[in-house]
Amino acid sequence: MADSNAGRLQALEDREAIRNLIASYGPLADSGDGEGVAMLWTEEGVYAVDGFPEARGHAAIAGLITGAVHQALMARGCAHVLGAPVIDLDGDRATALCHSVVLAKTDERWEAVRVAANRWELARTPAGWRVTRRDNALLDGRGAARALLAR
Amino acid sequence: MADSNAGRLQALEDREAIRNLIASYGPLADSGDGEGVAMLWTEEGVYAVDGFPEARGHAAIAGLITGAVHQALMARGCAHVLGAPVIDLDGDRATALCHSVVLAKTDERWEAVRVAANRWELARTPAGWRVTRRDNALLDGRGAARALLAR
Amino acid sequence: MADSNAGRLQALEDREAIRNLIASYGPLADSGDGEGVAMLWTEEGVYAVDGFPEARGHAAIAGLITGAVHQALMARGCAHVLGAPVIDLDGDRATALCHSVVLAKTDERWEAVRVAANRWELARTPAGWRVTRRDNALLDGRGAARALLAR
Repeated sequence: MADSNAGRLQALEDREAIRNLIASYGPLADSGDGEGVAMLWTEEGVYAVDGFPEARGHAAIAGLITGAVHQALMARGCAHVLGAPVIDLDGDRATALCHSVVLAKTDERWEAVRVAANRWELARTPAGWRVTRRDNALLDGRGAARALLAR
Repeated sequence: MADSNAGRLQALEDREAIRNLIASYGPLADSGDGEGVAMLWTEEGVYAVDGFPEARGHAAIAGLITGAVHQALMARGCAHVLGAPVIDLDGDRATALCHSVVLAKTDERWEAVRVAANRWELARTPAGWRVTRRDNALLDGRGAARALLAR
Repeated sequence: MADSNAGRLQALEDREAIRNLIASYGPLADSGDGEGVAMLWTEEGVYAVDGFPEARGHAAIAGLITGAVHQALMARGCAHVLGAPVIDLDGDRATALCHSVVLAKTDERWEAVRVAANRWELARTPAGWRVTRRDNALLDGRGAARALLAR
């Protein structure tokens, strides 16, 4: 296999791993697995959720799942649905953009209580691809979400 | 091409085929193609939709689409939207986790009438990847959906 | 690398490029990047949005983003979320099917103001994969969306 073909295969595997990593977030969050969510990030990784203090490191990120806000959502019934990401791969680094929609149960239906833009920064680590930073900004008409989605 | 590279290429194709199979569900369901939906499953495949009797085999699965509940949704206007799946590939078997959201038309808008966790079990068959079992549990605060999403 | 393996690698890259192209639409639209959206299409490409005049060519497609309807949605807060596409690759041509959901901000929540079926026709060009035609039909119970999703 020529070197260029090996590189092409590797790039496809990288994109697949990144896609799977990002797709893991929703099921982990909605099953309440704080440690599982945290392990998607590097040890010093950052998750900056619009409206919340920035979480840095595994303990802080797990705390977003085990904390009162998320637990109340889970008790009510919720889904953290992510849109398909646009992935930009650059060697051992990557960025991805996608929407996130949080649906929460009402009496009869589910309502979209958060709709946000997300920008993921990722890095290849000895343990595989991990998130180094995820920024999240509500799509509520303010400029922050637009800036996040602009490349 | 070395054997290991052939295996890597095959694994990527398997994941791609599984992703395409799962993504086919929504368009087939929303165009009312009961037979097309059924053929995503193996002959003895099971589709266990929360709140409905378990459907086993092609005729029963097609019946979920041609039946009164789904037909009423289609007449009203509906979309069966699936989130991006996390795929766990293990040789000739695979599992996938994803959200599903059923949107139905009201006078002016669409409302989310079902939001659920889904766990797909898949197998490689002579005709390609097929679903052997899909379990679906509403994300309404009960534990069933959480258990389905936990790995 | 045997020719058949080279073809398999190419097919995977093509599908990946098409998936990334389609996933780019939402972030570009929601950041208001009319030119970026337009460049997803070929120069003579068509975007036929249900309820709007057919847009043909880069200037007309960019105009859908810079126009009053989209700008009002953005000022209010909106997300153009696309479901995972089913991709059918045929050499230098491809088609893809997916749902689209437009979420717009209300006082407290987001509501789904458009839910539609989408059929994308794509072509390989010297600059990479581009959309030659995207048809969009609301899933409101009329037959047009069903026809679009039927293969």
